[in-house]
Amino acid sequence: MMRNIALLTEYDGTSFHGWQSQKGLRNVQDEIRRAIGRCTGEEVRLTGCSRTDAGVHAIGHVSNFFTGTRIPVDKLPLALNSNLPADISIHKAAEVSEAFHARFGAQGKRYRYRIYCSPVRPALDRHRVCHITGRIDVDAILQAAPYFEGTHDFSAFMASGSEVKSAVRTIYSIQVIQNGPKIDIIVHGDGFLYNMVRIIAGTLYYAGIGKILPGDIEGIIGSCDRRKAGKTLPARGLYLEEVFYGIDIFGEPGSR
Amino acid sequence: MMRNIALLTEYDGTSFHGWQSQKGLRNVQDEIRRAIGRCTGEEVRLTGCSRTDAGVHAIGHVSNFFTGTRIPVDKLPLALNSNLPADISIHKAAEVSEAFHARFGAQGKRYRYRIYCSPVRPALDRHRVCHITGRIDVDAILQAAPYFEGTHDFSAFMASGSEVKSAVRTIYSIQVIQNGPKIDIIVHGDGFLYNMVRIIAGTLYYAGIGKILPGDIEGIIGSCDRRKAGKTLPARGLYLEEVFYGIDIFGEPGSR
Repeated sequence: MMRNIALLTEYDGTSFHGWQSQKGLRNVQDEIRRAIGRCTGEEVRLTGCSRTDAGVHAIGHVSNFFTGTRIPVDKLPLALNSNLPADISIHKAAEVSEAFHARFGAQGKRYRYRIYCSPVRPALDRHRVCHITGRIDVDAILQAAPYFEGTHDFSAFMASGSEVKSAVRTIYSIQVIQNGPKIDIIVHGDGFLYNMVRIIAGTLYYAGIGKILPGDIEGIIGSCDRRKAGKTLPARGLYLEEVFYGIDIFGEPGSR
Repeated sequence: MMRNIALLTEYDGTSFHGWQSQKGLRNVQDEIRRAIGRCTGEEVRLTGCSRTDAGVHAIGHVSNFFTGTRIPVDKLPLALNSNLPADISIHKAAEVSEAFHARFGAQGKRYRYRIYCSPVRPALDRHRVCHITGRIDVDAILQAAPYFEGTHDFSAFMASGSEVKSAVRTIYSIQVIQNGPKIDIIVHGDGFLYNMVRIIAGTLYYAGIGKILPGDIEGIIGSCDRRKAGKTLPARGLYLEEVFYGIDIFGEPGSR
């Protein structure tokens, strides 16, 4: 009797070439597949909710696989973690319906982009934030952010060369939270194009340094021209925080 | 004309064998001395406010050195940082009086001990917190903490074998802050014995798991017996946050 198991995974992206399996390059997907193999004796296909780039972190990445193992789901996180390197941690495992697909079933995702503004670099957080040395006008970022909300063609906020059927996406909300030198940009949307959050963060950064005005965002979105948007901020500041499926897979208070 | 320069330093203790210079072992003091040498051409003596153990982090470590360099103090942090590894960052430099001594002049220090309570281990914070898998009764910790405040002989909270003239120290305050699975213990005192914060944290942890009662703390302190106190929690959860000199060395709003 095969069961479909969903995993909720945290990883430190610093030493990985991203989520995606790639021969000869350390990646999260192969590490977890290998751990599942060691625990179950099975070679499984592991479906991730999304790829993440090298250096990008995840707090709540979701993946799923089919297995015949009899290991109870609540024992799986510890069993897998004892076969995983320390920069990956499976927080939860849950049995889900046969139809559940971590990628196609995702109805929304929330990312966080962390900026640290200071004339001097951070030491402890050097792999965890985007360090910016100049001054940033947070009010300008706060004014610019709401222009991203809603349903738009986000072609201007997609890595050039990406191939997608449609670049139309809906951003439900963008929050900007300042805490001393830290500025967090939290984006919740139905789906994201390649590099979209990092380009949105880079465009808000441009608003923060006065290179564009908050009111320019509307025109940049409308242009569908990647060259009009801001630069792609580095991977190290990006966190995949939560993936939403419309049902509460892991039995948490949230609406995951 | 020799000047006395104080440095405010952040470091990630993970890959260091502590602050203290040790031949053949990577340490913070030698790295900073070497960077000063590259910037000034001088071989200086660098005095630290305190040693920290391997794995212990610092947000606001203070050190000082005498130099004949003409580099303006406000240029020193960036000049030094460009000669330092990424896990050390000099945040501020200030010219101080000839009498200033980073160690003997320190009137107080504030440390933070970070505990993370969860059945599964953390990935991103694996070098930054003490991970505890069992349940912790935070109320018991909150009840136990105030017993440490005041002036006491802290012999029971000192690594056995330490040699000090007196183990009497004053703890001005202990704060315990819970935020979901995170428990921070913040200790502000006039000085600390070897491993004192980690043993206090370990004793509060014992209160949290019911191994001792909050009311037992008084007797444990009174016993002056290391064996009565809790275990020494790991270095990775400890942060030296701030050192106080009664004067505002780095021109910040605080009373450093």
